Amino acid sequence: MESRSTRIGIIGSGAIGGFYGLMLARAGFEVHFLLRSEYEAVREQGLSLQSAVHGQVHMQVNAYASAADMPLCDWLLVGAKATSNAELAPLIVQAAAPESRVVLLQNGLGVEDQLRPALRPDMHLLGGLCFICVNREAPGVIRHQALGAVNLGYHSGPAAGTALAIVEEGAALFHAAGIDSQAMENLDQARWQKLVWNVPYNGLSVLLQASTTPLMADADSRLLIQQLMAEVVQGAQACGLVLPQGYAEHLLRITEQMPDYWPSMYHDHAQQRPLELQAIYAEPLARARAAGCHLVRMEMLYQSLAFIDRRNRQA
Amino acid sequence: MESRSTRIGIIGSGAIGGFYGLMLARAGFEVHFLLRSEYEAVREQGLSLQSAVHGQVHMQVNAYASAADMPLCDWLLVGAKATSNAELAPLIVQAAAPESRVVLLQNGLGVEDQLRPALRPDMHLLGGLCFICVNREAPGVIRHQALGAVNLGYHSGPAAGTALAIVEEGAALFHAAGIDSQAMENLDQARWQKLVWNVPYNGLSVLLQASTTPLMADADSRLLIQQLMAEVVQGAQACGLVLPQGYAEHLLRITEQMPDYWPSMYHDHAQQRPLELQAIYAEPLARARAAGCHLVRMEMLYQSLAFIDRRNRQA
Repeated sequence: MESRSTRIGIIGSGAIGGFYGLMLARAGFEVHFLLRSEYEAVREQGLSLQSAVHGQVHMQVNAYASAADMPLCDWLLVGAKATSNAELAPLIVQAAAPESRVVLLQNGLGVEDQLRPALRPDMHLLGGLCFICVNREAPGVIRHQALGAVNLGYHSGPAAGTALAIVEEGAALFHAAGIDSQAMENLDQARWQKLVWNVPYNGLSVLLQASTTPLMADADSRLLIQQLMAEVVQGAQACGLVLPQGYAEHLLRITEQMPDYWPSMYHDHAQQRPLELQAIYAEPLARARAAGCHLVRMEMLYQSLAFIDRRNRQA
Repeated sequence: MESRSTRIGIIGSGAIGGFYGLMLARAGFEVHFLLRSEYEAVREQGLSLQSAVHGQVHMQVNAYASAADMPLCDWLLVGAKATSNAELAPLIVQAAAPESRVVLLQNGLGVEDQLRPALRPDMHLLGGLCFICVNREAPGVIRHQALGAVNLGYHSGPAAGTALAIVEEGAALFHAAGIDSQAMENLDQARWQKLVWNVPYNGLSVLLQASTTPLMADADSRLLIQQLMAEVVQGAQACGLVLPQGYAEHLLRITEQMPDYWPSMYHDHAQQRPLELQAIYAEPLARARAAGCHLVRMEMLYQSLAFIDRRNRQA
């Protein structure tokens, strides 16, 4: 058997996949990008990153329009929207080396449960929660405003006993690329922690058509953000998870120190893409409810966004 | 003392004042209209009503740009926004005959409490809740889509013992003009009942930029409307009021049977006028809270609207 270095595939060419893929490529990893609408642009011009943290990065990269053309990868980072997992599943399987590790770099709950039945039994499935302010400026052009950490957790795979070792292996990959990454013992906990940020800011950016700075500056919307965060913490607790003490306040402070930021859900809405409402709202609400916990503000935000999303896509 | 027929003054020229004033004038009452931005148009062209119920009505009317020019009136109907009561108070006093009855045809709670100190002790103050779909199409042109009833209640005045008689006198005026009107024993109850409609539909029309038909057709927004209605009923109960059995369901059915309607708050927002958030949201929330009742969805709607309103008027 031929020995070779770790091969990484990036599924989904948006801001998240582009940023982490380019950082890994820059660190010397062999990275392969599966692209859709951006394929032509990236093949011709490569990928460009304008980063407030890492400066300007520009690289020619291995770009593919078809998973069949990719070499089999040891790690597959999925940066596409959770709403497209069903159609991506066969492509992920096609690009996966034996015992490949698939990481869903997506927000919300239940995304791994949905994808798992479509994967091979030998494939490991992980979740990754990205704490990053990053946007796609143009095809192949990524703007990174702040932060960058990835919290990883194990979902399922052939050898549950090695779960934490595999998660640590993933964190080590990111570390090698200069990216902060934490191996979490419990993926659900990692996902609920990230929801403490996503639930208020993603939803309110669409509902109030506002970015983080004005949302934090206004006393009413700021209080609402805090109340929504408290509900998410309550939902996590109802589901048996204990978030770090003062976690909501911690995220509030981080957001205050961030540059003004439009969350990804705002961009999805502006471009009439479906919103990730199932993973970020419906599933956490259902799990909390099943645990006897009714998150009223989060439900109202979900109802409002569901109305907006349906109308937006009819238009 | 000279005998004369009932003289009615209309303060505020919008859809509400215009509709009820014109209906009273058509019925033969002596009606005087105090106008601001619409004065020129109404003086020259009169008032026009396009009513789905009463047909086309057009009349030359007594129009005034200044309260000082008006004869003293026995009844003063205030159809202006609650947000302008403070500046209207001196004009109302100026146009008021001795023992004049002032009726605030406005939504929400606390509007009489705010105006009362600015009135003379001999003046009676009433509230009127209008169940009507009416809009101002152009200066002096009113479009009436459906309904029309006015529920009246007594607030304060020189002879509290005659309160119900005065309210019934008011209802009789409206009846004489072909308008359904109920004399209510308790003004607070009348106001809370109307809030069961205003709280969901006014707020959601701004928050979701949607009129009644799509809001009722979508399962999520419809459920949210019902939940908001239930909160208002709960708030009224906490304040010691008993609304009629099944009142929320009654308003839901009426709204379903109405033509598609954009509530007044939507128009206020679209024209960058201040929203009536104090009377419709802040005051009911405060009263419910003082009674130990936290209306969470209504608070979230208020917080969202407060954010939107501030930004809208800065723009």
